[in-house]
Amino acid sequence: MSIFRLLVSCPDAHGLVAKVSQFIFERSGNIKEAHHHLDDENKRFFMRIEIETSTLSCSTQSFQSDFSIIANQYNMIWQLHDAALRKRILIMGSNSSHCVADLLNRHHENELEGEVIGVLSNHQKLAKLASWYDVPFQQVAIDANNKRAGLSDMTQAVIDFAPDVIVLARYMQIIPPDLCEKFAGKIINIHHSFLPSFVGANPYARAAERGVKLIGATCHYVTENLDEGPIIEQDVVRVNHANSAQDMKKMGQDVEKITLAKGLQYHLEDRVLICNNKTVVFA
Amino acid sequence: MSIFRLLVSCPDAHGLVAKVSQFIFERSGNIKEAHHHLDDENKRFFMRIEIETSTLSCSTQSFQSDFSIIANQYNMIWQLHDAALRKRILIMGSNSSHCVADLLNRHHENELEGEVIGVLSNHQKLAKLASWYDVPFQQVAIDANNKRAGLSDMTQAVIDFAPDVIVLARYMQIIPPDLCEKFAGKIINIHHSFLPSFVGANPYARAAERGVKLIGATCHYVTENLDEGPIIEQDVVRVNHANSAQDMKKMGQDVEKITLAKGLQYHLEDRVLICNNKTVVFA
Amino acid sequence: MSIFRLLVSCPDAHGLVAKVSQFIFERSGNIKEAHHHLDDENKRFFMRIEIETSTLSCSTQSFQSDFSIIANQYNMIWQLHDAALRKRILIMGSNSSHCVADLLNRHHENELEGEVIGVLSNHQKLAKLASWYDVPFQQVAIDANNKRAGLSDMTQAVIDFAPDVIVLARYMQIIPPDLCEKFAGKIINIHHSFLPSFVGANPYARAAERGVKLIGATCHYVTENLDEGPIIEQDVVRVNHANSAQDMKKMGQDVEKITLAKGLQYHLEDRVLICNNKTVVFA
Amino acid sequence: MSIFRLLVSCPDAHGLVAKVSQFIFERSGNIKEAHHHLDDENKRFFMRIEIETSTLSCSTQSFQSDFSIIANQYNMIWQLHDAALRKRILIMGSNSSHCVADLLNRHHENELEGEVIGVLSNHQKLAKLASWYDVPFQQVAIDANNKRAGLSDMTQAVIDFAPDVIVLARYMQIIPPDLCEKFAGKIINIHHSFLPSFVGANPYARAAERGVKLIGATCHYVTENLDEGPIIEQDVVRVNHANSAQDMKKMGQDVEKITLAKGLQYHLEDRVLICNNKTVVFA
Repeated sequence: MSIFRLLVSCPDAHGLVAKVSQFIFERSGNIKEAHHHLDDENKRFFMRIEIETSTLSCSTQSFQSDFSIIANQYNMIWQLHDAALRKRILIMGSNSSHCVADLLNRHHENELEGEVIGVLSNHQKLAKLASWYDVPFQQVAIDANNKRAGLSDMTQAVIDFAPDVIVLARYMQIIPPDLCEKFAGKIINIHHSFLPSFVGANPYARAAERGVKLIGATCHYVTENLDEGPIIEQDVVRVNHANSAQDMKKMGQDVEKITLAKGLQYHLEDRVLICNNKTVVFA
Repeated sequence: MSIFRLLVSCPDAHGLVAKVSQFIFERSGNIKEAHHHLDDENKRFFMRIEIETSTLSCSTQSFQSDFSIIANQYNMIWQLHDAALRKRILIMGSNSSHCVADLLNRHHENELEGEVIGVLSNHQKLAKLASWYDVPFQQVAIDANNKRAGLSDMTQAVIDFAPDVIVLARYMQIIPPDLCEKFAGKIINIHHSFLPSFVGANPYARAAERGVKLIGATCHYVTENLDEGPIIEQDVVRVNHANSAQDMKKMGQDVEKITLAKGLQYHLEDRVLICNNKTVVFA
Repeated sequence: MSIFRLLVSCPDAHGLVAKVSQFIFERSGNIKEAHHHLDDENKRFFMRIEIETSTLSCSTQSFQSDFSIIANQYNMIWQLHDAALRKRILIMGSNSSHCVADLLNRHHENELEGEVIGVLSNHQKLAKLASWYDVPFQQVAIDANNKRAGLSDMTQAVIDFAPDVIVLARYMQIIPPDLCEKFAGKIINIHHSFLPSFVGANPYARAAERGVKLIGATCHYVTENLDEGPIIEQDVVRVNHANSAQDMKKMGQDVEKITLAKGLQYHLEDRVLICNNKTVVFA
Repeated sequence: MSIFRLLVSCPDAHGLVAKVSQFIFERSGNIKEAHHHLDDENKRFFMRIEIETSTLSCSTQSFQSDFSIIANQYNMIWQLHDAALRKRILIMGSNSSHCVADLLNRHHENELEGEVIGVLSNHQKLAKLASWYDVPFQQVAIDANNKRAGLSDMTQAVIDFAPDVIVLARYMQIIPPDLCEKFAGKIINIHHSFLPSFVGANPYARAAERGVKLIGATCHYVTENLDEGPIIEQDVVRVNHANSAQDMKKMGQDVEKITLAKGLQYHLEDRVLICNNKTVVFA
């Protein structure tokens, strides 16, 4: 089935849904699934509409150019995604393989609504894994003594891959602000989370010291404020006093990989809209 | 804020959303939240639309009579709920108080989008509890030797309460078919669930024997097929070898009360549509 | 079945288990359930032993006085609890009833391994609820302009109740340091928890702003450092963008009451040992 | 740290713990972690003791031969595991890779307390994956027209691998009774689980039809009664009406791989004892 996904975010106004659905109807599109949400606080309206395109009476181009007239009128931020154009996914990793291997296997099992086009890493360790999965691997080392040059090379490498979405699968380097900006809303990160949270180094050790009973992970979009971007998905796993900091780390890795994959999948299916520093996830 | 909730289920057709949203727009309604879902298997379309009514340019009556024209045209099953008309909730219980007390306390804390109008039981035990919460209590005993008469009296008592929704909060009697039919889609039940399931008497004992690690609960609409109606909500709780059958029962009661309250709340907020033997829950 | 529960925490040493189990065997006690845990970091050993006492060949007194000799030898912190002596539970609440009602109903349903001896509150609101459950209620108002006097009266009231364990069921007042000290390891609190955490006022509003996907609760022992005491139990519930701060609060209350009850039950069953600022929970 | 793990299951008797811990003490072993559990129903006693062996004053051999005297006296079923002798894990798969890839990656990341010695499959598909992870791969095809011969070859291949534990990672063939018997308590399987359960073909389709809200997985020991062996671990994942049967299958695969890995890890750490058709898991 051929599907368009129309995402809209705009100031609330009367007749928005009527306008948009009439537009689709006039072009013989069929609505398959739709979610509308009014954010009362921010007085913004959010839509995600899946349109069957087999019956569509106009080209994608004319659909887009015609829709931009409505979009301007209502001051919309909008995207039209053709589900057939699967998103190009760039995975970035460092040395730890749990998230990268999990994503590559999902790709291999055809679980992801997208194509993994490459693995980019500052280390060589994951090369063989990528190779088994027939995914191009590129290393761009980041020399601690010359980070600026390394990050600049990495930025260029990312741009050369021309990805639609970048997944930081435990990539342990800072993403430069210009890259954050160029791929705003398109870089997805995963990090561990705790109740209560422990800032600073070695959080697992501190969580073990404090005897927490839950270990979590947060999947979010990357902004310039490290680990502070809009949250896409979160999950937790239960731990206990018999778990060492090392155990907790392993258990945390499990919840990291599952949560990252889930957040990525939402993104690939165009289910996530960003509003200020939060997300609307039409799951 | 004054809100209408429009629920629609109908065979899929082009232009459904356009038609309905245009209808709302022409009457100056503002869409606050909407969910649309196409069930590919059954080729049925489901909508739930929350409409702010403060700006509505017509009466509820004329909204309804006008909408019925569209509804007929598209062969819709539909309901229009005024959120201000809080649903009348009848709680039915027997001897065990965990679900009844939980619901009464939520009512008392103003958590439920509805009014508890009474507690109906085949036993006297819950009378004092209802009285503390200032909720009318009625006992209709079911004599095991003359069930037919008891159930008939109970049926009449239910009808006299004129409820919008009936909650079987561990009511341990069969609901007669005519009552099931009269209140189709309006009777909510909770029962324990297991992985794997254990049919027959004393399932907790058998679950303990088998050493299950999860105990669950299923909240569903009541149909003539006992415990087989459309599922609204499910949840589980973790157990282990040190838990006796008795412990498991207690833990199961916790998950029962939470799951029942959640399922009821979905119903009260008009979030549940029924399709064959399953539900669409626009949560 | 008559049961003793022996809890021991001490510096690790060879032969600890042999010594203690030999001691029990010599007095014809039968071990029903036992957990031993060595905390590698702190080199402390923890034991919880359930002893069937029907066959015990000595009195409780002589058991205790004899055991204190071993205890001194190994520098043990230890407690011997007779399960038949159910703990006296004092519930402290303010205006919100969700935790208090849940605990009272569990008490009523005979789910708690203890006796609720009273509800103490700074407000009058919960009086009727306590009365329905036949539980003594006492109000000790805390005048904002003279907190010291109020807290002093409250402290006296607590002492007069002579509780074995105090449950702060959303009691919204500071517990004075002398009360914390007198009932060290015997005051249990519940508070909301977030990933990430939000300090300061109105955390639900901030959690909604940030678009978190999980809302949690932490049950812990009270120490002088508010909300920083050893964690007994934690849990979370899933939320989404359609949930307002108000919804999140309600959903948070559900997880609060369940988590508090679970933490309390662990305490009542003498399953919790404290080590520095963490707990060992032999669940 | 060098560790023995002593697992004991026997009829309940006075002085069991004293006897065993005295035995360990006399040989200068140090107890690091211990769990004791009395199954009241079956009147059987279960122990798992972790003993630090660095201070042990006797050889493993003499420890074992001496202990067998106690064991006979109390009619114990017992095992002594040297944690340094990591278990040899044989993974058996068919075509689906999610569980195999997950286990291989955990092995690679050094998460498993054991060595993966091979992947055995009735298909060729997983060969490359195993090769990337430097794990021997062997195919033993099972010809549908001559199952008996294929299963016989497979049985021989399993025996040749000389595994300590066999993991059926979605191995879609029957395990012959003689293999079940030879490796009783050493073959671990994973299968999907539902609330309620759906027997017969295509359970995901039926779960989708019924509109279940949870999809689960059960990890258990294999006995001759297919899917009916003692349960080690279970977990669930939440689904909804928008999830197709295909989606549910994918989500079910995630919970399968996590649950299988968790169950296996318990086994590798010698945390699981079997009693009739249930397990005692000292987690």
